Amino acid sequence: MKEEELYQLLNKMTLDEKIAQLMQLATPFFKGSSTRGHITGPMKEMGVSESVIEHTGSVLGASGAREIKAIQHRHLEDNRLGIPLLMMSDIVHGFKTIFPVPLAIGCSWDLDLARQSAEVAAKEAAVSGIHVTFAPMVDLVRDPRWGRVMESTGEDPYLNGEFARAFVQGFQGEDLANDMYSVAACVKHFAAYGAVEGGRDYNTVDLSERHLREYYLPAYKSALEAGCEMVMTAFTTINGVPATGNRTLMNDVLRQEWGFEGVIISDWGAVKELIPHGVAQDLKEAALKAFRATVDIEMMTTAYIDHLKEWVDEGVVAEGEIDQAVMRILRLKNKLGLFENPYRGADEQLEETVVFSPSHRQMAKALAVKSCVLLKNDGVLPLDQEQHLALIGPFADNGDVLGPWSWQGSKMDAVTLRQGLASHISEERLSVAKGCGIQSVNEAEMMAALQAAQTADRIVLALGEASEMSGEAGSRTAIKLPKPQIELFKRLKALNKEIVVVLFNGRPLDLSDIVDEADAILEAWYPGSEAGSAVADLLMGQENPSGKLTMSFPQTVGQVPVYYNHFNTGRPLNAPDAQERYVSHYLDSPNDPLFPFGYGLSYSTFTYAQVTSTASTIKKGETLTLTVEVTNTSDRPGEEIVQLYIRDHVGEVVRPLKELKGFKRISLQPGESCQVQFDIKEEQLRYTHADLQWKSDPGAFTAYVGPNSEHVTAVPFQLMD
Amino acid sequence: MKEEELYQLLNKMTLDEKIAQLMQLATPFFKGSSTRGHITGPMKEMGVSESVIEHTGSVLGASGAREIKAIQHRHLEDNRLGIPLLMMSDIVHGFKTIFPVPLAIGCSWDLDLARQSAEVAAKEAAVSGIHVTFAPMVDLVRDPRWGRVMESTGEDPYLNGEFARAFVQGFQGEDLANDMYSVAACVKHFAAYGAVEGGRDYNTVDLSERHLREYYLPAYKSALEAGCEMVMTAFTTINGVPATGNRTLMNDVLRQEWGFEGVIISDWGAVKELIPHGVAQDLKEAALKAFRATVDIEMMTTAYIDHLKEWVDEGVVAEGEIDQAVMRILRLKNKLGLFENPYRGADEQLEETVVFSPSHRQMAKALAVKSCVLLKNDGVLPLDQEQHLALIGPFADNGDVLGPWSWQGSKMDAVTLRQGLASHISEERLSVAKGCGIQSVNEAEMMAALQAAQTADRIVLALGEASEMSGEAGSRTAIKLPKPQIELFKRLKALNKEIVVVLFNGRPLDLSDIVDEADAILEAWYPGSEAGSAVADLLMGQENPSGKLTMSFPQTVGQVPVYYNHFNTGRPLNAPDAQERYVSHYLDSPNDPLFPFGYGLSYSTFTYAQVTSTASTIKKGETLTLTVEVTNTSDRPGEEIVQLYIRDHVGEVVRPLKELKGFKRISLQPGESCQVQFDIKEEQLRYTHADLQWKSDPGAFTAYVGPNSEHVTAVPFQLMD
Repeated sequence: MKEEELYQLLNKMTLDEKIAQLMQLATPFFKGSSTRGHITGPMKEMGVSESVIEHTGSVLGASGAREIKAIQHRHLEDNRLGIPLLMMSDIVHGFKTIFPVPLAIGCSWDLDLARQSAEVAAKEAAVSGIHVTFAPMVDLVRDPRWGRVMESTGEDPYLNGEFARAFVQGFQGEDLANDMYSVAACVKHFAAYGAVEGGRDYNTVDLSERHLREYYLPAYKSALEAGCEMVMTAFTTINGVPATGNRTLMNDVLRQEWGFEGVIISDWGAVKELIPHGVAQDLKEAALKAFRATVDIEMMTTAYIDHLKEWVDEGVVAEGEIDQAVMRILRLKNKLGLFENPYRGADEQLEETVVFSPSHRQMAKALAVKSCVLLKNDGVLPLDQEQHLALIGPFADNGDVLGPWSWQGSKMDAVTLRQGLASHISEERLSVAKGCGIQSVNEAEMMAALQAAQTADRIVLALGEASEMSGEAGSRTAIKLPKPQIELFKRLKALNKEIVVVLFNGRPLDLSDIVDEADAILEAWYPGSEAGSAVADLLMGQENPSGKLTMSFPQTVGQVPVYYNHFNTGRPLNAPDAQERYVSHYLDSPNDPLFPFGYGLSYSTFTYAQVTSTASTIKKGETLTLTVEVTNTSDRPGEEIVQLYIRDHVGEVVRPLKELKGFKRISLQPGESCQVQFDIKEEQLRYTHADLQWKSDPGAFTAYVGPNSEHVTAVPFQLMD
Repeated sequence: MKEEELYQLLNKMTLDEKIAQLMQLATPFFKGSSTRGHITGPMKEMGVSESVIEHTGSVLGASGAREIKAIQHRHLEDNRLGIPLLMMSDIVHGFKTIFPVPLAIGCSWDLDLARQSAEVAAKEAAVSGIHVTFAPMVDLVRDPRWGRVMESTGEDPYLNGEFARAFVQGFQGEDLANDMYSVAACVKHFAAYGAVEGGRDYNTVDLSERHLREYYLPAYKSALEAGCEMVMTAFTTINGVPATGNRTLMNDVLRQEWGFEGVIISDWGAVKELIPHGVAQDLKEAALKAFRATVDIEMMTTAYIDHLKEWVDEGVVAEGEIDQAVMRILRLKNKLGLFENPYRGADEQLEETVVFSPSHRQMAKALAVKSCVLLKNDGVLPLDQEQHLALIGPFADNGDVLGPWSWQGSKMDAVTLRQGLASHISEERLSVAKGCGIQSVNEAEMMAALQAAQTADRIVLALGEASEMSGEAGSRTAIKLPKPQIELFKRLKALNKEIVVVLFNGRPLDLSDIVDEADAILEAWYPGSEAGSAVADLLMGQENPSGKLTMSFPQTVGQVPVYYNHFNTGRPLNAPDAQERYVSHYLDSPNDPLFPFGYGLSYSTFTYAQVTSTASTIKKGETLTLTVEVTNTSDRPGEEIVQLYIRDHVGEVVRPLKELKGFKRISLQPGESCQVQFDIKEEQLRYTHADLQWKSDPGAFTAYVGPNSEHVTAVPFQLMD
């Protein structure tokens, strides 16, 4: 349709029909759905009438070409003006082919593969009838207690922004109307949901506006610059006002300042939650607050359909304002081509061939290989297939490796580590024992594991968190491995055998119980459908680990938050003139994390030659180029992620000690060298000033190049006026 | 002097002399000081000339009437215009008579005794020649990892404000010029130093401006409203700008908005620290930033004396601006009567009789008695003096009970718990053993303790933190008792005897290792000079515990920050319709603290009758009075702290679940009842709105009355337009 036709359509709609467009309901409300009528509990209490359902704008959580077609078909029969439903779902890190969780994808530093993972997810979702995914999640995260850190690519605003763009491009493709393998993206959770106090999900967020803009907002903006069609509100407050009712954030910043013209949707129930938040006394007031914040779609509560009309009748809301929200929704439907083709990509036959296809699984494996981070290796990895291996632990043969937000994925279909290793090692050389449950222990299992270990040359110990121990509402105060697993480790260690620990988990953990005694640690995160095959290839040396952390591992939870791009303070710990006591430190812990941002080992060794620079000064419009020769000095092909950080020594406000400004993933054959170049321009030196202006200050800077945020070579330069 | 004469004096001063007035140097720089010339390390590097010293405005850390008189005498000989020095020191919770640390004083909820403690400290300091104390410290604290929580009265803005006023009144008395027993107060650390990230001292502070104003600023304001003469800057940043260079905070808020006309002083070295903070490239720029922030006195660095004149010469700073700063300092000297009497209260003879006098020690004991908080008592306290007691632990006979910031106090003079108990129990009934060191253990000590315990009827186990484990730069990531002490506890517990734990420490601790097994726990904090006598009186039942916590005790460090006046969130844990998982909670911990704000036990039992209210609505100008009858139902006289909290159910911004709005400390004989009344007025219902306006909103409120922040009776009321 043309814009003009959309307006004509709008003009035919009654106010009730318009308001119903702003409603999003879950699948069971809809005719044609296999779960139709399975409405219990809170859904039942919503009291949504059939006439509202018939005019509802969008559906949450529907999936499967047949079902979605049926729902759309019945809807179009009932809907007076034939306005198709938008089908939305959470396709976060894959549809049925599950890719590593986003925090793991972040650790790949591989934007191409990240984009491709979103393409695959979009393709599988689109042929299954889905139009919109509630992804990417780009919340900056610094607190591993929060369960949703696994949904984010990490603690760096620049890197998160790069991934945000890659994911949006992957989901949306070039042309939503004509590319039937694409879905619209919805960046979330606007804004700063990741800064929940105490890492407790849904808890208070409080930040200065400058801090918000400098560190938390850039990744959302990056997603929007990549064309992201939708924005989802955060459950949380920001500076005292819940995001879903925060007009300053949504209207003033997002729409007016950034020019976002797309659809804003509340998170599940978030409009009604303005009541418990204490900024609305009832649903009617909640409707007004959310609507004033320009939230277009209300997910799963009925403030709008119950009360927006009253606000219009009372002259508080103009119908024209509602028209604007409706138009944003109609425009999105139109962009997706739904008026011409309400069934869009939904295709039962393609579903059979596309979804969870071998090629998709291969891509999931490729990304899983690059996402795992080798944290420690005292020469025990890769494993020797001639040795006898004891594979032990609750994740030895466990399909719970998809991670949260993989509702379409099946644990049954996931390759377990046992299955992965079985393709490398003959059965007689591989003993497998569980040893303990994730949070439970029984002596028989423990004894069986010890026995298996006794006869083995080497132990691979697969430990971790059950997927429900992270993810939404999965906050933990103790971010250690559960006690039974520590006990298993200790008892195995008493056998005096080398132990390779493989970790499956959704957050940076406090590894203090095992880090010194483990001979190698591979952080696998939740690698997805091909978990076992990817991890086995890495363990056996068929692949070479190359992932690097994008979220710091704290020494202990008492050190949280710990992140690389912190400030110097007025009394830095390591200053030459630092006093012994009166410095910014803990009495009982280093300031540094256990493993820093950007850190990860390889089976190869890489040396960095001296960094050369084309200039020692730079002006606006100029480019300073740094070059470093990186050499693979090992006898193994490997990949290295070369990183560029910059420090602005004096700012109008305090500036981080280091900020990631670039990176290159390079592949080097044994003995091969490569010149890695980074361009530095004035634009990269800008930051949010006290008056919220985004600009650079002339003065002293240092560029740092290296394999991680701690081990770097410094190159000073000046920005000139 | 009259103001006019001060201006005449100013007009005689050269620019160099004026700038030197802005300088504060430590005692060793001054002629007449016994440490004269002991200038090493950083002090030496300052390179301060004799001519600067001769015109310096103030002295840091001098003490003792004889020495201070000598310094002043020599100074007046050298100083061309005869401008006396201001003598400043940190007199935080007592001078030589050490009172409980401020966090303990907070737990007394006794404003009269708090004021008296400051009076005593002022008197001892004043006769020792001191003019200004760097107190009170009123930083709001929510993170027990921070070592300086012991310097604050706790987590509540209202209570901190009340104590701030009491301390200022106590220090300053009625009339600084004529009351020779008073000293000028300097409220610190402006602002929000207590919000250091990760509880790591000197670390970043970031808050929204609304949050800053609503929770962090009120206590400073309260001190200023009580007439506090000086303000000290925080070491920390606030929203990206270090407080010491933060013109918005210091000039715009403190001076312009609040009308503060007194002296602002930097904290130790904080002007120079603008360089490592990264907002000044050198000392010259640091001078300008601090001066622009209207910081009048630079403590222990030389930015002003080295560079302010250059800024004047360059026309950037007007001499008139320097005049203003100098005038603020001269006015303070004049207020203290120094021009008429440069030796003011300094009096060697009075020093002998006043300092550490029996009556002062008695007052310290009285406050210590009220500051201890009985956290748990399974019927084992008070002790029976007929029983045989084993007093065990590193604090059994330890004078390290004064706490940080007690530099004039002597551990040798402090009454240890052993000494205190010895006056209640005959020697043959009291066995004493150390058991372990604070952070060390040896088997011989441990065995001796076990042996002592074997023959005893009951064990008193005195555990805690060495004083240097809290205080400035005393941050800890693990806020547990040190492991040797836990081990001592466990081994004693294995004897199956009742254990009374007495804690000497500077922060809320994670007590999870002992809380279930201890039969009683008395939180003594650092009680000061009379520690042992106060605690012994409580243990023996000669006194009755009545203190209540003003800072929540977390379950574990992973739950930090936990504080009572938090928000509800959109998904509160205990809502009637809460889902099992999708609520704001931790998977592995309650949301509630181990011991909440306002909590503390007594040997008496108090019952609260129904709360009655004079009205169910209130308007501006009206008073609503709540009355509750509290009865001592025990056979022991006791004191109870009755608390009033209010919740504003719907705000323009989210509002805390409870906010302390009043309290009464009452004393009840056995069987006695008392009507406790609380008045509620509209003014108490005001809060900082999104536009930073301080006002109330009509609507629903609930008042809560009870013995602590968790156990309360609710009384709803409405604020009408």
